[in-house]
Amino acid sequence: MATLDENDQKREMINKIRQMNYEELYDFAEDIRRYMISVISQNGGHLASNLGTVELTLALYRVFDPFEDYIIWDTGHQSYTHKLLTGRWDKFRTLRTFGGISGFTNIFEDPVDRFGTGHVGTSIAAALGIEKALELDGKQANVVVVIGDGALTSGEALEALNQLKSQNSKIKIILNSNGMSISKNVGGLSILLENLRTNKIYLNIKEAVKRGIKSNVEFELKKVREAVKVALLGQDFFESLGIKHFGPIDGHDLHTLEESLKMIKDYSYPTILTVFTTKGKGYMPSENNPTKYHGVDKFDPDSGDFEKPANTFSYSDVFGNVLVRIAREDPKIVALTAAMPDGTGLKQFSKEFPNRFVDLGITEQSVVTYAGALAMNGFKPVVAIYSTFLQRAYDQIVHDVALQNLNVVFAIDRAGLVGTDGPTHHGIFDIAYMRSIPNVKILTPLNAQDLANTLYFVLQKMGTIQGPIAIRYPRDVESGKIDEICGKIDSTEFFSPFRWENLVEGNDVAILAVGTLSREYVEMCQKNNWTLLGVRSVKPFDANAILKIISTHTFIFTVEEGTVAGGFGEGLISHINEHFRDYLGEIRIHNIGICDQFVPQGSRQQLITYAGLSRNTIEEKVKENIRKGVKRV
Amino acid sequence: MATLDENDQKREMINKIRQMNYEELYDFAEDIRRYMISVISQNGGHLASNLGTVELTLALYRVFDPFEDYIIWDTGHQSYTHKLLTGRWDKFRTLRTFGGISGFTNIFEDPVDRFGTGHVGTSIAAALGIEKALELDGKQANVVVVIGDGALTSGEALEALNQLKSQNSKIKIILNSNGMSISKNVGGLSILLENLRTNKIYLNIKEAVKRGIKSNVEFELKKVREAVKVALLGQDFFESLGIKHFGPIDGHDLHTLEESLKMIKDYSYPTILTVFTTKGKGYMPSENNPTKYHGVDKFDPDSGDFEKPANTFSYSDVFGNVLVRIAREDPKIVALTAAMPDGTGLKQFSKEFPNRFVDLGITEQSVVTYAGALAMNGFKPVVAIYSTFLQRAYDQIVHDVALQNLNVVFAIDRAGLVGTDGPTHHGIFDIAYMRSIPNVKILTPLNAQDLANTLYFVLQKMGTIQGPIAIRYPRDVESGKIDEICGKIDSTEFFSPFRWENLVEGNDVAILAVGTLSREYVEMCQKNNWTLLGVRSVKPFDANAILKIISTHTFIFTVEEGTVAGGFGEGLISHINEHFRDYLGEIRIHNIGICDQFVPQGSRQQLITYAGLSRNTIEEKVKENIRKGVKRV
Repeated sequence: MATLDENDQKREMINKIRQMNYEELYDFAEDIRRYMISVISQNGGHLASNLGTVELTLALYRVFDPFEDYIIWDTGHQSYTHKLLTGRWDKFRTLRTFGGISGFTNIFEDPVDRFGTGHVGTSIAAALGIEKALELDGKQANVVVVIGDGALTSGEALEALNQLKSQNSKIKIILNSNGMSISKNVGGLSILLENLRTNKIYLNIKEAVKRGIKSNVEFELKKVREAVKVALLGQDFFESLGIKHFGPIDGHDLHTLEESLKMIKDYSYPTILTVFTTKGKGYMPSENNPTKYHGVDKFDPDSGDFEKPANTFSYSDVFGNVLVRIAREDPKIVALTAAMPDGTGLKQFSKEFPNRFVDLGITEQSVVTYAGALAMNGFKPVVAIYSTFLQRAYDQIVHDVALQNLNVVFAIDRAGLVGTDGPTHHGIFDIAYMRSIPNVKILTPLNAQDLANTLYFVLQKMGTIQGPIAIRYPRDVESGKIDEICGKIDSTEFFSPFRWENLVEGNDVAILAVGTLSREYVEMCQKNNWTLLGVRSVKPFDANAILKIISTHTFIFTVEEGTVAGGFGEGLISHINEHFRDYLGEIRIHNIGICDQFVPQGSRQQLITYAGLSRNTIEEKVKENIRKGVKRV
Repeated sequence: MATLDENDQKREMINKIRQMNYEELYDFAEDIRRYMISVISQNGGHLASNLGTVELTLALYRVFDPFEDYIIWDTGHQSYTHKLLTGRWDKFRTLRTFGGISGFTNIFEDPVDRFGTGHVGTSIAAALGIEKALELDGKQANVVVVIGDGALTSGEALEALNQLKSQNSKIKIILNSNGMSISKNVGGLSILLENLRTNKIYLNIKEAVKRGIKSNVEFELKKVREAVKVALLGQDFFESLGIKHFGPIDGHDLHTLEESLKMIKDYSYPTILTVFTTKGKGYMPSENNPTKYHGVDKFDPDSGDFEKPANTFSYSDVFGNVLVRIAREDPKIVALTAAMPDGTGLKQFSKEFPNRFVDLGITEQSVVTYAGALAMNGFKPVVAIYSTFLQRAYDQIVHDVALQNLNVVFAIDRAGLVGTDGPTHHGIFDIAYMRSIPNVKILTPLNAQDLANTLYFVLQKMGTIQGPIAIRYPRDVESGKIDEICGKIDSTEFFSPFRWENLVEGNDVAILAVGTLSREYVEMCQKNNWTLLGVRSVKPFDANAILKIISTHTFIFTVEEGTVAGGFGEGLISHINEHFRDYLGEIRIHNIGICDQFVPQGSRQQLITYAGLSRNTIEEKVKENIRKGVKRV
């Protein structure tokens, strides 16, 4: 087992909450909320989910011991109270900043974060592994998972849940049901939970059960009572998998929480306790609109208003807007996402074309296969998923889409460095993992207008151009008006997303920058009289542009917001080696990108600097290479 | 919708079976079995699963129309009868041969194969996509999925199943339950199905229900009856997700099958019909040992004996044997697999160390996260999964293992070209997708002895060498005795898996061949006086070996059984460009591997030739390059 620094300082808060009475605890819960709102309103973060789990965490850590037991917070986006209670109260001010506290659980931050999280649905499998380690070590400890109803729609959570019984697990799962994941919940399971939530008769039964707890009576329901429950509510998903299911209980009622947790603590079988919480609890703007306050940037804590710069829009906005306009003319377009209609900019599409909008919950695998089936039958599916989450569907991209050479558009949002969400969320692998898949094309628009033009071009030419096309764009904004961009969408006669763009004409030195990153280097290249080429298509290459560059320049630098290994730059050298071999001895190529390391959290600009992609770093590198190198004769 | 060539010839067999009486049908089922056994005993294939689904397919195609309706065969490994009935009777003799009929459904073979399969659990998501396409097109057709109980343990199948109700689907799912997936089934769901199978009272209820069918009475079970069922059997997984669940029925009883299928055909809600089949039905050796006859190579149809060459062993055998020996000395080793204990060679390990053997069913995602949790707590997890299936866990490798720099060994079996299973199963992407992940090391042993030594070295040094290590080896055999290999495991003093091996010393030309593929070129290099370097580690590179080669050779060829894009060769050029730049003008490097294409099925040797990796092709390529190139001065 990982060793923990269990000094008094770290345990202080746990000891303190165990000595409080309920009145003091509720006051403390409010302190925690106020502190969280003050930090999150400055630093951004998952506001609604963390406001919802304050009492749950307090009760949990009065009954279980985070230093002795193994508490796994699925996704980790609701673990702020856990962090505050386990020795990170002061450091919490640095939440999500460069070098600061992570917005998820992180083993490098503190080993009491028993397993690092960020992506959804890993907790149950991790808990099973921990349980096995405890068994083999002959150690006793409780293994507890806290997971949301949204996370339970993911394949990994479901497949691990199905293993609990046959693995003789005695994991305790706290199902934090707040009736929504990132957006609204989807799936049969959520209907079950909604039934639980609304069925008064059942709640009455549960009330009786709760009284049973108080008189310390074991309330294992008998088969007959189960049958009554089924007659009232339908069958229970968890019980069908051999998992004992208790609840629902009020997730903001400390006493009920505590008594229920005490009860299930010693059970020797897998157990689920459903807890109903209110997302955004205790902060009105957030309670009223939890989706808006799911993951937030800086906002005014009094009004709840976001400090959004005027006249800016995100690439997600552009994508969503343009797709709606194209879809008005083309009934074959279907938009798909995995529980991210807001984040991906598809909200408007979902309202205007409800029949052509598909959200299957957090099921990236199913969404990609589903899109393949749509394409197989003559539709134009556009799958909008963040780069980091699309990793979940890697096999489906290969097996269901690319192998069958189907016309699926992958709108890869949040590609590159995403900023404060940190290492679990950076989209730095997509170029590498997509480039090796046959039939796949990878487009990297240079700016918002380019994204609009590319999307238009691709959907117009679909079928003429056969096979899957990935369009990659970052979590970033531009200033201007989306309407103007839409108005200027080029006709396909003059625009090709496969042609690289000469952004600055210069001499001797050429920077080949992938996608929107190219915008960083315009001034630098103008100042130094260097050529800047905007790489709009990572696969296929623009062979003419390459030949022109290598026959007229000596120093060639590729720059990309992605891994160097397997990335655009490596592909380019390989391409030149294969097709323009004789130039290799005369030119000097240097690949710049993410160098075989995970990148921490911070602002996008901090991370671009950290990764060596800022204009200053690039300028230095180029000049250093020129000093060392020899000029072309 | 895809257009189908629905000419009489293709429909002939469907029309024929619809005119038969049951006696004729049972005779025809035996004809089909005999034909399948004769072909599979020659060509290899999924014997047991296809023998089990003959009557099911006959009944299905008397009730549903494969040309009008949409029948999706999950995984496709049970679709042989489907192929025989839809116009491929004669061509079936070419099953799994180069240019012949695929062992899975394949849209390029015939559009009546509505969606290509090979990997498990994609059918329900594909069916949902098809249903949406039909809805948007305003077309009427039935969408039917046939899926095994093993496939239902996979995350993608479970997540799609959970969406049926909320998507207002009316998909019909035939759950083909044979009490096993590739090996024994695991998971709570299989316990439920086992309960169904053994509970006589329930079967009696079902018998009554069946009589209900005959008198054409709608038998939608009332809530009260549901309650009785629950009291007897426990809760029903499918019903809890809002899916109507009928059965179990006997999957070899044509009349019951047909009546049940007719009944569910017109239901306007998602429906599951559980069908019990006997894997290997009608062929005694296979009925008695279905695991042995799951996926088979050539065998004697009379005795059932496999024609295994004497004195050969597979790399999987070596892996399994050596791991057992190491595990006897090291209690920290835990072996994990995803429903492949036999295929990965872990059978013996599972018997000798049942507590240290983990099989979570077809749940690659969960297995990798689970392994991460074991490593986090001081164990040495060894995850044995085929290269093609490990694609399912790409995100977990990144997010749960590599990001936390955990000591997990990935034993990547079936890496490279797997032969007759074809394009869905080739393991040609692992080098590319693993190489871009920080912290991951990729080892490629040169032969069986090397695999043994590498495994020993890696498990000895674990912890000293930090982070995940992938060991990649092909679906291939060597001659000799495993005991001798185990006896010769080098002490770690003399062996390093990170050092490349000089297999043949030569002049001017150097072949850098990755892993066991290097064995192909020994004679060729000896004959031509070329250097042959066995690349034992794809990441990290052996920098000394590289410097030596580039400073003494002009023509350098990299050869790998994997994609060129993102592969070893590209990495090598990039490395030389970065670290030994001045050599680039003088040497000529050429990367050979799988060139941006999916590779068809065939024998391993046929495919190695097809992909341009055979010694003859390489020899020609080298000589052609020498003719064109200039010698080093």
